[in-house]
Order: sequence, then C-alpha cells, then structure tokens
Amino acid sequence: MENKYSARLQSLRDYMRSAGVAATIIPQTDPHQSEYLSAHWQVRRWLSGFTGSAGDLLVTLDGALLWADSRYWLQAARQLEGTGIEVMEDGKPETPSMIDYICGNLPAGSTVGIDGMLFSINTTRTMESRLEAAGMKLVVDFNPIDLVWTDRPGRPDSKVFVHEEKYAGMSASDKIDMVLDRVKTSGAVSAFISDLAEIAWILNIRGADVSCNPVVTSFLYLSSQGGVLFIDEDKVNDDVRRHLEAASVTLKPYDAILGFLSALPSEEKVLVSASQSAGALMAALGARAVVGASPAAMLKAVKNDVQLSGVRDAMVRDGVALVHSFMEIEDMIAQGKPLTEMGVAEILRRHRSADPMFFDLSFETIAGYGAHGAIVHYDPTPETDVEVRPGNLLLVDSGANYFDGTTDITRTISIGEPSNAQRHDFTLVMKGHISIATAIYPEGTRGAQLDVLARINLWKEGLSYLHGTGHGVGHFLNVHEGPQSIRLNDTMAPLVPGMITSNEPGLYREGEYGIRCENLVLTAEAFATGFGRFYKFETLTLFPFDLTLFDTSIMTDEEIDWVNAYHAMVCERLLPNLDAKAQQWLLSKTSVLTRK
Amino acid sequence: MENKYSARLQSLRDYMRSAGVAATIIPQTDPHQSEYLSAHWQVRRWLSGFTGSAGDLLVTLDGALLWADSRYWLQAARQLEGTGIEVMEDGKPETPSMIDYICGNLPAGSTVGIDGMLFSINTTRTMESRLEAAGMKLVVDFNPIDLVWTDRPGRPDSKVFVHEEKYAGMSASDKIDMVLDRVKTSGAVSAFISDLAEIAWILNIRGADVSCNPVVTSFLYLSSQGGVLFIDEDKVNDDVRRHLEAASVTLKPYDAILGFLSALPSEEKVLVSASQSAGALMAALGARAVVGASPAAMLKAVKNDVQLSGVRDAMVRDGVALVHSFMEIEDMIAQGKPLTEMGVAEILRRHRSADPMFFDLSFETIAGYGAHGAIVHYDPTPETDVEVRPGNLLLVDSGANYFDGTTDITRTISIGEPSNAQRHDFTLVMKGHISIATAIYPEGTRGAQLDVLARINLWKEGLSYLHGTGHGVGHFLNVHEGPQSIRLNDTMAPLVPGMITSNEPGLYREGEYGIRCENLVLTAEAFATGFGRFYKFETLTLFPFDLTLFDTSIMTDEEIDWVNAYHAMVCERLLPNLDAKAQQWLLSKTSVLTRK
Repeated sequence: MENKYSARLQSLRDYMRSAGVAATIIPQTDPHQSEYLSAHWQVRRWLSGFTGSAGDLLVTLDGALLWADSRYWLQAARQLEGTGIEVMEDGKPETPSMIDYICGNLPAGSTVGIDGMLFSINTTRTMESRLEAAGMKLVVDFNPIDLVWTDRPGRPDSKVFVHEEKYAGMSASDKIDMVLDRVKTSGAVSAFISDLAEIAWILNIRGADVSCNPVVTSFLYLSSQGGVLFIDEDKVNDDVRRHLEAASVTLKPYDAILGFLSALPSEEKVLVSASQSAGALMAALGARAVVGASPAAMLKAVKNDVQLSGVRDAMVRDGVALVHSFMEIEDMIAQGKPLTEMGVAEILRRHRSADPMFFDLSFETIAGYGAHGAIVHYDPTPETDVEVRPGNLLLVDSGANYFDGTTDITRTISIGEPSNAQRHDFTLVMKGHISIATAIYPEGTRGAQLDVLARINLWKEGLSYLHGTGHGVGHFLNVHEGPQSIRLNDTMAPLVPGMITSNEPGLYREGEYGIRCENLVLTAEAFATGFGRFYKFETLTLFPFDLTLFDTSIMTDEEIDWVNAYHAMVCERLLPNLDAKAQQWLLSKTSVLTRK
Repeated sequence: MENKYSARLQSLRDYMRSAGVAATIIPQTDPHQSEYLSAHWQVRRWLSGFTGSAGDLLVTLDGALLWADSRYWLQAARQLEGTGIEVMEDGKPETPSMIDYICGNLPAGSTVGIDGMLFSINTTRTMESRLEAAGMKLVVDFNPIDLVWTDRPGRPDSKVFVHEEKYAGMSASDKIDMVLDRVKTSGAVSAFISDLAEIAWILNIRGADVSCNPVVTSFLYLSSQGGVLFIDEDKVNDDVRRHLEAASVTLKPYDAILGFLSALPSEEKVLVSASQSAGALMAALGARAVVGASPAAMLKAVKNDVQLSGVRDAMVRDGVALVHSFMEIEDMIAQGKPLTEMGVAEILRRHRSADPMFFDLSFETIAGYGAHGAIVHYDPTPETDVEVRPGNLLLVDSGANYFDGTTDITRTISIGEPSNAQRHDFTLVMKGHISIATAIYPEGTRGAQLDVLARINLWKEGLSYLHGTGHGVGHFLNVHEGPQSIRLNDTMAPLVPGMITSNEPGLYREGEYGIRCENLVLTAEAFATGFGRFYKFETLTLFPFDLTLFDTSIMTDEEIDWVNAYHAMVCERLLPNLDAKAQQWLLSKTSVLTRK
C-alpha cells in the first residue's frame, strides 16, 4: 500500500538519483540548531509523519531509517507504520549510530548529500572525517526539499518587537560591547551568531517565530564597526529599525548571509560557535573562522538585577494564576464535573493569559493523569486525553513567558487520597529536590557535580529517573537554555551567581503514575571564608507542594523545616495578591507539616 | 654567586647553543609517563635541586623557570634560591601555562628542543600545533642529558620476579588474550604498552625499579603472533624467562624499541595510548599507529576473585599490624617517651614488614602532627621532624604492598583530649566518608558523580578540600591507578564491580591541624530492579576510627549505626588474629558510639 509518506520519500529519491547521492540525512533542526522548530523546518515530520521532538531520518535509494530515542520508540513505531521507514532504537547497545550505519552499510565510493545549513560545524567535521575514512564523500549543498515539498510553509513571518530595556536591564549596544569584549579573548575581532535566543537577547528583540519560543529567525554579525542582522526585512517595522540603528545594527536579507561571509576581508578573524553555527557558514568563512564557544551564552545566562527583579514579580503573578487554576481544578473534581487533562491545561492557560504581562506559554503544558504522568514528554492530545478523577496522581508541568520573565513549574498532586506507595515515592523525590535547594557549593562548581544530591535517595531504593535534574532558563526567552545544567553527564559550565536553573527530580512508574517536583532556583552568593567563595540556590517559584503526599517518617527534621519555610515564603508573597477565598485556600494548602 | 645548579644549567645551555635550540623542557616524568621515578629519570631534580613530585622546568638560553603547583610554591622558592631559576606559581590566574609562556616570550623562528620519549602523544601534538601557530619549530630528538650529567645513575637494574598465579588469579597468556580482544575493537591487530603497571599486570611480573612501585622498566608489544618485552636483559633470570616463554613473550633490549616499531610491516595497525605512550614512539610507528585509550587499563582495574580474596586477607594482616603499631604509639606517649613523626613511620614499617607477605611500603608514610597534618603532601624528613605529644591531632596516611594485595589507609587520631572544634571538623569529614561508603549507584555511574556526597557537609559550613576523594588502587602494584577516580573533575571511566577505590575526604586548617579519613572500598553488585542494576561500595580496610573525635550531636542515627557496624566488622575480622592484650585494646577502641 502506497501511503503519502512513502510517496514523498520516492520523490526525494528522484532528486537523489539525479544528483548521484546515495543517502541523505534529514535532521530535526533548523539553520540555527534550534530545539523547537517552526513549520517551515519540520521537514522530517513532513517526510515521515513522525511528530517527536527529536530523531533524525536517513534516506537511502532503497530504504529509510529513523533514529528515535527511548522516549519515542513506541510512538515512532506507531506513526511510521506503512511508510516503509524502519525505526532504529537509539540508546540500545546493539543499535549503531547513524554514521556507523552509513559507514557499515553503504558501498565505498558512495556520496552522502546533506544541506550544510542544518548541521553544526562539529557535526559536519565528524561526518566528513568518518566518511572519508570509509572511502565515501560528503556533499554539503544537497537541498532539494523546496522542490519536493511543493506546498512547504514559508519561513516564519511574525513581526519583530522591541523587548524594552525596563525589562531587559541593559541596552542592546551595551550587550554588543560586552560580547565583543569576550570575542577579543578568542583572538577574533568580530563574531557571527546563529543561535536565535542569543540574537534576541543581544539585540533586545523578540518575535513569535517558534511556538512558545519568542525568537526571531535571523543571523547576527557583530564587529566594532557595527552589526548586521540578516532577516526577512518585512518582519521589521520602523520602531524596531530605529531601535537597531541606535545599537549600530543594520539589516540585510536573511538569504544574504553566505555571500556576506564569503565577501568579508580575508584577514578578518570571525568567531563562530562549533556547536551552534552551521558547517556551511564555516565553509563560507574559510580561513577567517575562529571556531570556539559562543561569546554570548555565558553572558546571557547570568541575569542582571533588573531581570531578576522582573522574574521575582513574574513568579508572584504566576503563583497567583496557579492558585486560581488549582482552586478551579479542585472545585470541578469536588463537584463531580467532568475534567480532562486538556481541560486542566486550558484552565492554566486561561488564568495565566489574563495577566497583561503574559505573552505566551513557555512550552506546551504537560498534564498527565495516572499512567500518563509516567510518560516524561507527554502532552495531552484529543486522541490521548483522559478524565482526571479521584484515585491517582496528576502531574502538571507548565510555564509562561511574561515580558518580565519566564516560568517553569511542575507540581504533582493527588486527586483523592494517595496510597502509601505514592506518598513514599513522592517524598523520595522531594528529598532530592530539597537537597538541591539547600546545597551550598564553592565557586567553580558545575551542575553535574550536584546532580547526585537529587538522586541518591532514589538510587538507595533501586529507583531512578533518566532526565536531567535541571536546565538553564531564559529571561522572557526559551525555557531551555545553556550553558549550565544539572545532569548525569557533565557540562563544563560552572554555576555562576545570576543563573536561573530548574530543580526537577522525578520518578516514573510505568503504567501507574509519574512524579516530578520542579521549582526554578537562582544561583546567589552565600558567603566567603578562608576556603573561598561559596554559592547557594535561592528558590524563585511560588506555589505549595501537595501536603497530603508527604511521608514524614522518612524525612529529617531539616527537610520538614524546609517545606514549612518554603510554604511560609509562598504565603508571604502570594497572600497580599489574593482575595479572601483564595487566601483561605492557600492557607489550607500550606498548613504546617508535622510528624504524625 | 655560582651555585652547582646554575653551573649544570650553563652546561646544558652549551649543548642548546650548539644544536640551535632556544628552549628545552625538562619534564618530571620518564619514557613511561610514570608518576614516581627512579633516580635515572630525576633529571629535573638534578638540574634544579627542586625535589617536589611534580613540576616541569623550562630552560632558555638566558633563563630558567619552574612551574610548581600550589602544594610546592613555598618549597620551590626555598629550594631554588641561588639557582637563578624563577618559580612560576601554577594555578594562579595570572600565571601563563608553559606553552603560553613560550609562545608569548620567544621570538618567532625559535626552535624548542625536547626528548620525544618524555612527552605523551597528546602533549607532543598540542605543543607541535601551538608552536607552529606561533611560527616556531619543535625538535623532538634533543637529549644531551647523558652528556651534561656525567655521573648520571644508570637505569634501574632491580631483578624481575614472577607474581605467582595463586595471587594474580589469571595467567599472563590469558591476560594477553583478553587485552588483544580489546585491541580488536579499536581496529588494530597489535598493541604497544608503555605503562609500567600495565606491563607488570599483564605479564604477572614485578620488580623494584621505583621505590614503593613494584614495577619493571620495560615496554611491551603484543600481537597474536606473540609478545616482545623490551628490557635490560640482565634483569631477567631463567625462571622469569621460562615464565615469559610460556606466555609466548620473547625479550629484546630496552633500547631496541624505536628500531623495532619502525621495522614493523607497514600495513600492521598498532594500538597506542594517547596519554601514556611517548610522541617518539608514535613517530616511529607512523601510519601504523592507531591512537586510542589503553586496552589494558580497564581490565587491570577490575580485580578477579583471587585478587579480591588476597586483598581481604592482606587487609586483616595490615589491620593487625596497625593495631600493634598504634598500641606502641599510645604506650610511648602515655609513658612520656620521646616520639617523633619519623618514629611513628618507623613503628608502622616495623610491624608491617614483619609479615612474610610484605614486599615494601606502597608509598612513603605520611605522619603529620599538628600543623604538619595540614600539609597535604607532607612526609617527615630529619629537617622537619617534630615530636608527637598530647595537645593536637596526628594524621597518618600509610600502606603496604603485600604479595596478595595493596593497602592504603589514613587515620587521624587525637593525642590527648581533642578540642570541640577538632571534633566538629573530624565529624564533618566522617559524614562525607560515610556518605560515600553507603552510596548506591546505577550501572554506568562515574566517580565524579558521587564526589559531592563527600563534600556537601563541609561546603555547607564554608569548608573544602582540594584533593580527590578517591583514586583507584592496584593489586600488589601502584597505589595510584586509573581509570576510575572520585574527584571534582570528571573522568569518563565508570565504577565497575571489582574496582578498588580509596574513600578519603579531608579538611586542612593551615597552621593548626589536618584531618583525613581513608578506607579502601570495593565496587560490588547491590541489587537489580526494574530500573536497572545498582552497585554499592564494600569497605575493605580494617581499623577503627578514633572514637574520641566524634561529635554525635551533628550525626544522624544512620551515621552512628554505620560507625558501630564498621567497628563490629573490624573486631570480627581482627580479634581472632590478636593476643589477649591487643584484643582488649581493640575492644576499647571499638566500644559502641552513642549519643551523649
């Protein structure tokens, strides 16, 4: 049976044959190495029908394979049925990496074709050397997608707007100076930035090009002679144009980028990021390229006082919206009114979006009831939606982008009376959460060093979770940002005062329920001693944890004290912003936790 | 004033001038990238007078600089006085690395000369590319030391002996097969091993070439056609020759190595270690070299059942020797007899060496009283030796190589009544020690992930220590081995059942006292659950901690229980091997710890 995806693949193969290409890779990204994509760059989804947020596609002349990580093994198998595309279960020891597969299965002399704009400098280099060693050739200008995908959506055309300095805390021109100062330490004189969040941060501009990611599709070139923003120019109105002019940034068309880079003076040294910039850009720069780390990532991650004050305000309004949301959810369940996971997400969106400072959600709300809570990347769709009713746990991971900050919070609540096993599991997760929240660490400490504090109580009972404990969070920007993180695998960036990171250990009982407890925490100065400077985490998120889920018999006094102190802070900040009924509700949810 | 070291440097400079070399580097290592060196390779010490265990020397035509890490800043300044050698305080932000210094201070066109046998493949490659970028040249066959150092000691000539299979648990030929199996996965067919501990382990041979490191100075080539050991042949008697023949290993002179490698068939692929093998060996191999990780490191680190049974026996005998030692130390102090740090070390050596299975110490005993205990790499010399008397702490870090295993233990005891501050500090260190000892962790966990468990209680009070929490330990071999470790910086090797690692958090109050609490721990299977396989540590070392130093008011019930259970195990294993008086002593040292 011919299905529409296999027809699309056949059409792609016609172009492969005529170009002498034996295999092509369709990665799940865009020319900016983005995690979330606009419709224009959903090529892998259009060719395969697979909707997962990660997973690259390999198309050969007589087959196609999709590498899916464990979150997506089942979903990929289901969605790819009938397409002729084979699922490669990535992460299994017996599954080769895509490059190993290519080297081991294609005949020597084969040509592999890719769109050089969709692979980072690092990835392109690795592929080139692997293929060369296997006697194959990499062609980096193979991009027939516009010809195959005849009704392909255009590039996103959302209007750009200025992120006001009263929220950003620093002008675009000051940020450009800061970035160029960093650039100098690499031996380069100018910089080329591909990362959309970095461009939005540097220039104090925002847009709506990617759902939940308020970024602007563009490239940015920075030098002491001024900057150039490469963008589809009809997205930019006069206000924004004036704003950019004030920072000495001029405009050129988005598609002019390769020509511009290859026309730069041959002696100019340009810093590009090995992991964020595309191999094709590096090729255009040639000997001008200084390949290094992004000069903006660390600067963007460290929030200034204006940003922090904004985030603190946003946390109060977000907390108030959550109080109203969970009151409504409880009411509906108490009154026996039908409520589904999608209904929960809708309630949260309604209360958050009533805030004039609300711009958008910061990611699609995850509302997982019972077994759905154990699917880490679940978000309810009409096909999966189930009723939320007494008898199991509800996991809600949600957040918003406000003009003055970004939120991201997960709460797990019991609908009805929890079981002892659920209380035990929840408390183990909270012990990890509290260990991170109360950690003190010397200057230079990386998140990976702290990660075990969140996990050790689970490990001691043979339990674990495989996602990261924490990711960096942007300021009215992407909810996932680097360079810092708290995770099993090391990342070299230290935790620095001003960084906002999530603290979200979890536990997932397949087929039963999922638990995750997430606040955002700020790295702040703790004290200095003869042994050096020490930092702490300050919890920013304001909403109670479900008191019915604590098993105090496995908690230390200090852990119980932390819960009570946190709830006291939540009350102190939220109560003045609530009406009497909501105040009563919050007080009842933050009564003092004591040993039975 | 001309001193003997500046005269030596002048003589070296004559050879530099005649060879057209503007700078030469004298590293503190040997052709095997060893940590501990025989007299023959103490070139840096002979040229400079600096005796530290680390620190490389740069000699230019008109100056000389020694890069010393923070442990050695003071000692280097003192020892280098009058030599004309400048101390570069490595680790300070303003101190350039040696290669940065060379690139920034020598004129373009300069030639840097090194002995290519003394720098790893990795280091040689880095230097080459850095110097090339600075317009300089690296010459890798500059080695006039034999001409300058006319009374240079010969290469170590200790006799080789067979490490019997009843201790090693596996024959040399079985180990060679295991290593060659690993080699295949790298795409090579043969292997070249430079690391002395790996060679001793693979071939079941030992020697006394380096103090406290029972290794044999040699290189090893392994292929399915048989092995070749490159060694000064008069070190090998007929017994050892027959033992090696049985494993199909033949002998060639030590100095034949470069000629042998360059004469191998041009199509043969030979695996060499990037970090352990010298750049000169890589150059001799040319296109034959497959540069990767050592095929033996992981195999050597995972001890077999015979080795583990041997280590458990050795721990009992070592514990008995320690009981007798500390009884004698206590007696002398109680009777007011004079006792110094060197006296303490001598007592330990005497009791340990009475064991027929004793071969040597596994490192020079560190006995640091009071402020000396705060100097992490202190070992007492006649110049520094002080009396051990009531009123402060004594830190004793010691160990031995027995034919059936290697020990390494640190105990900190109070001579007389400790202060409350000392008890508080000691207990913080022990809380970290217990956290590591009781950790449970999933398959794949690296030591660096666990490290914070040892430190978090110190960090919370603004305290820290900068050395690693744990290093791998050999079996009747070097007391420091890889690939695993427990430390601030990540190393990628996971903890695997059968690995022996130290657990040694500490705290150092400069000018006052030092505390370190060290046991060796074995990684062992804990249990398997639906979440995977989990491992635990099993403590191997058998000797009580000083009960007078615990402050139970800051300990959890579980921590107190751990101390009591550990002491019960120590009694169970040691008491049957002690006479009545010693039994009484041990029982008094392991009375039950209870809250005051």
